Amino acid sequence: MSAGSVLVAGGTGYIGSFTTLALLEAGYKVVVADNLYNSSAEALNRIEAICGKKAEFVQLDVTNEADFDKVFEAHPDIDSVIHFAALKAVGESGEKPLDYYMVNVYGTINLLRSMVRHNVTNIVFSSSATVYGDATRFPNMIPIPEECPLGPTNPYGNTKFAVETAITDVINAQRNNAIKAGNEAEAKKWNGALLRYFNPAGAHPSGIMGEDPQGVPYNLLPLLAQVATGKREKLMVFGDDYASHDGTAIRDYIHILDLADGHLKALNYLRANNPGVRAWNLGTGKGSTVYEMIRAFSAAVGRDLPYEVAPRRAGDVLNLTANANRATKELGWTPTRTLEQACEDLWLWTKNNPQGYRQQPPAELLAKLKK
Amino acid sequence: MSAGSVLVAGGTGYIGSFTTLALLEAGYKVVVADNLYNSSAEALNRIEAICGKKAEFVQLDVTNEADFDKVFEAHPDIDSVIHFAALKAVGESGEKPLDYYMVNVYGTINLLRSMVRHNVTNIVFSSSATVYGDATRFPNMIPIPEECPLGPTNPYGNTKFAVETAITDVINAQRNNAIKAGNEAEAKKWNGALLRYFNPAGAHPSGIMGEDPQGVPYNLLPLLAQVATGKREKLMVFGDDYASHDGTAIRDYIHILDLADGHLKALNYLRANNPGVRAWNLGTGKGSTVYEMIRAFSAAVGRDLPYEVAPRRAGDVLNLTANANRATKELGWTPTRTLEQACEDLWLWTKNNPQGYRQQPPAELLAKLKK
Repeated sequence: MSAGSVLVAGGTGYIGSFTTLALLEAGYKVVVADNLYNSSAEALNRIEAICGKKAEFVQLDVTNEADFDKVFEAHPDIDSVIHFAALKAVGESGEKPLDYYMVNVYGTINLLRSMVRHNVTNIVFSSSATVYGDATRFPNMIPIPEECPLGPTNPYGNTKFAVETAITDVINAQRNNAIKAGNEAEAKKWNGALLRYFNPAGAHPSGIMGEDPQGVPYNLLPLLAQVATGKREKLMVFGDDYASHDGTAIRDYIHILDLADGHLKALNYLRANNPGVRAWNLGTGKGSTVYEMIRAFSAAVGRDLPYEVAPRRAGDVLNLTANANRATKELGWTPTRTLEQACEDLWLWTKNNPQGYRQQPPAELLAKLKK
Repeated sequence: MSAGSVLVAGGTGYIGSFTTLALLEAGYKVVVADNLYNSSAEALNRIEAICGKKAEFVQLDVTNEADFDKVFEAHPDIDSVIHFAALKAVGESGEKPLDYYMVNVYGTINLLRSMVRHNVTNIVFSSSATVYGDATRFPNMIPIPEECPLGPTNPYGNTKFAVETAITDVINAQRNNAIKAGNEAEAKKWNGALLRYFNPAGAHPSGIMGEDPQGVPYNLLPLLAQVATGKREKLMVFGDDYASHDGTAIRDYIHILDLADGHLKALNYLRANNPGVRAWNLGTGKGSTVYEMIRAFSAAVGRDLPYEVAPRRAGDVLNLTANANRATKELGWTPTRTLEQACEDLWLWTKNNPQGYRQQPPAELLAKLKK
């Protein structure tokens, strides 16, 4: 199957930019759409520096109904969308839920309506392990398989869940309506992937591309990176009395390059196999405790990083680890990067880009890429 | 507590119009907003003929962001909304899910945003027993209590579920944000009722007000009414091999006047008790089989109505009956009308208004009201 054109909505963000890179490297033409609310178009320059290919950029607001129409009209060769454009801070979603419903839910309704109008028939959706909620209520389902009943416990997760049902309902309707009209070929064209991630980690091994969060980061590794650079005094460890081997909570950290590869493989699978709507977990299946992460990142940095134990946070659970057997079996996807590599890549990115994308990377890193 | 002004969104529809009547009779000022897509403003004239009071009418599109703002700006005395404005055909929702996500989900996001902007702090939402999905998966939860895990099985139900989470998240956020700001009084003002109905039935005993569905009705009693008037040859009974005493499926039919009273009581409860968000089932707790309904409506009509048994429909379940103890205990709500009365009222309405609201009711019915 020949590679077509792909719209990556939210393509300048962390996972979006690495997926854009993976798509370009695989030969896809890519149009990136983003509102640049929490990201920088500079990511696209870094992508070009790495792979020598350029994604087209369109600034776009997902809550503006006409914006997607304009993109699809200008690019009739787009047949697929990878949809990252969303707000993603769990804590903020509790304070400003309507922003999350507007951008995440209504934004996706807009996208789907425009896709239907323009016959853009494949969608890969950036969902989240958050849709499982407190998966520890099903003790025989750890690591979590896709069959685990969903039950998000915060507004962010509720919006991801609502979008999963919207995509499922729309793809199913497009298929059923086509079948009723006797058009099996049309039915097969409509496909959706719901990708549920665990904890994305790491950066590009070149050191010129990584996560560039605005404001206070809310994930363990970016916080550790700030401790390493001195922006933050110490890491707070929330709870050391969990039932893990060292008392700290277990999460499933996945290298961003492996995660991006999962998106590419999901898109290829949709286009080649026409499965309709299907959910896949993207994780390593291997859990790491907070203390193990501190040790791993300290090793990459070359010195012990300070931390302090604080009480557990409400809503945190012992273990969130993916059963990713379905992705391995069906998509042929297996994460190949280690946690150590994620830590080394993150540290290379962090120490060389103290201002993130707001300053040019060191010339020697760019020079290495050209070899 | 003095009665304030209430916006009834979708107030010319079946349940909306009867709730408007109940509110006016209870002394509330009512503004009805509707797009008249599947209803008639004539309902408001009938309401006035019955209770001598008039609701103000505004034509409005819930998907138009500015429309709610205009209503709240024109009526600063509105402090509560009862929200019925939605598409409601389960079958159609499978064919046109995006219409359902736009009107039901995005429409409610618009409403909530406008409520927050204008400090309109109480919402009573017209949800549905559909949010429980196939409740027979929890055999010890029949009749269904509000604690039953939710799991809708069609796009209509998915949109009702998404709206329940949106209302819950927004009310909780308004409360938590106010508490963080030290304003307990402001926090208590934000309240939401999620009303999950079972099968609304019947009409006003005056015979001048009832359900006026456009197109093919999809509920048992309106279909039986069409058989009685000769518009339809016979009723199709889908499945007579269920595990009920006569083999047909069991549903919980609730008189529309009782249902409307439940909305009034829920609104009063929100205003008096400030519970935050709370779900209540509105049903009788008593199940009736399809055969029992045919007999009851045949008795009201005075002759046996023809029916034919067909295979079960996919997705139908044996028993959907409400456990409405919570509404009885907390709202002081107890349905008082019998199934026989619902059938008699429906037949009086049907035979006297063969064109629904598109023709004036018989003068003798209006004359009776004036006594």
